[in-house]
Amino acid sequence: MRPPIGIFDSGIGGLTVARAVADVLPEYPLVYFGDTAHLPYGEKSPELIRHFSSRISHHLRDEGCRLVVVACNSASSNALDAVRDALGPRIPVVDVVSPVVEFAAAHVPGGRIGVIGTRATIESGVYQRALAAHGLQAVVRATPLLASAIEEGFHTGSVSDALLAAYLGDGIFNEVDAMVLGCTHYPLIADQIRAFLPPGVAVLDTPGIVAARVKEAVSVMPELRGPGPVHARRFLVSDLTASFASGARTFFGREVELEEHRIWDI
Amino acid sequence: MRPPIGIFDSGIGGLTVARAVADVLPEYPLVYFGDTAHLPYGEKSPELIRHFSSRISHHLRDEGCRLVVVACNSASSNALDAVRDALGPRIPVVDVVSPVVEFAAAHVPGGRIGVIGTRATIESGVYQRALAAHGLQAVVRATPLLASAIEEGFHTGSVSDALLAAYLGDGIFNEVDAMVLGCTHYPLIADQIRAFLPPGVAVLDTPGIVAARVKEAVSVMPELRGPGPVHARRFLVSDLTASFASGARTFFGREVELEEHRIWDI
Repeated sequence: MRPPIGIFDSGIGGLTVARAVADVLPEYPLVYFGDTAHLPYGEKSPELIRHFSSRISHHLRDEGCRLVVVACNSASSNALDAVRDALGPRIPVVDVVSPVVEFAAAHVPGGRIGVIGTRATIESGVYQRALAAHGLQAVVRATPLLASAIEEGFHTGSVSDALLAAYLGDGIFNEVDAMVLGCTHYPLIADQIRAFLPPGVAVLDTPGIVAARVKEAVSVMPELRGPGPVHARRFLVSDLTASFASGARTFFGREVELEEHRIWDI
Repeated sequence: MRPPIGIFDSGIGGLTVARAVADVLPEYPLVYFGDTAHLPYGEKSPELIRHFSSRISHHLRDEGCRLVVVACNSASSNALDAVRDALGPRIPVVDVVSPVVEFAAAHVPGGRIGVIGTRATIESGVYQRALAAHGLQAVVRATPLLASAIEEGFHTGSVSDALLAAYLGDGIFNEVDAMVLGCTHYPLIADQIRAFLPPGVAVLDTPGIVAARVKEAVSVMPELRGPGPVHARRFLVSDLTASFASGARTFFGREVELEEHRIWDI
């Protein structure tokens, strides 16, 4: 049996990435893990994000995953080393920061790249350093409440409008050449974010770019590549409530059944 | 040495209660615990809220507390039994729900009482049952994102206005006789909430009512009552970030120094 691809996030926002992976690798088994017992990660300390990410990585390894996608910008920015340490050298890790930065370097060389994300993501400086290393200029802003607002269903209407106006209304992104939505929740309000960007600026498709990178990684792994029977996708959360169950549908784009794995009790 | 009063919340919102307790018992030592590693509790399952509350209770007991205030509505509504079990019969527990319901019964007998709170608080049905048991009528609504918005500093301006309009704009509280702010964050936006209430309706002062109950409890405990030297107040959090440090000042009303106690690693 083909081993599953593991994908994790602090909550259900990473389902936007899981959905893109399922689209390009429709026949692959996936194990998604949303750490709903501990979300949101965006306001937590780097040490704590590493602690949680490490524990989830062990769980995904124990679930048989042979490739792990860190579908959370706060974890990709603060805990990538902890994830790699936890998984060991034989399990490749795909994060959501470097593929997007490399895409920007290839398509907007020398450009000015806007990034919004959680406080943990922006304060880590990871986007700023990666963009600079690729000769790109970073314009960054933390937009802390945005992910929780989207998760609460405020992805249209006056609440998200007021939040975006509070965070971006000073015109910080008036001069950017491309925009990175540095949180897996933000694709749901991409259209509203565009109103704060110069006309025609590309909003990079993080889920699609990351999914392409996952497909590439799979293609060089003998134990994963090649045809195989269609396997089930599993969606695990560390704390199950009705609100997450209904939100999951919004982020994955189709019905998903959540299973509760209480790894916080171990 | 007089043993300290323990006060806990999912985060720093409970400092509104700690402040009121410090005001009525200025010479008493306090140990505050904010579970910033796990906040917010309002969207978590009852089981998980009980798990966290129980662990914190053990920690406060180990810190020498001989009275514990559950300064969190989500925990008071879902975890009071777990807290009592954890502390044992010799440590009295004061919650934030029953003193306020009893105050309402005494001052607005037979009245119609509005309550807003997190999803965990409202869905527990605890306010509804307690108000009904006292012959009061409950009008309740969950306002999930409000606590996080206030914690993020949106306690004035267009974001909280838009949120309140989304949650309360249908006039649900047009006929209430008194209003309970069923989350320790909400006192910071009491004035904005008043705009959605009939003119002159009393917004019950949860921190003040709870502090009075704490003072009453202390007065019958020989090991706590009576004069004593002024002792230090300590403010513990399970995850320390700059953002919590600055927020703590807003909620407590004066400078506080946070200490990190990583009880999640035990």
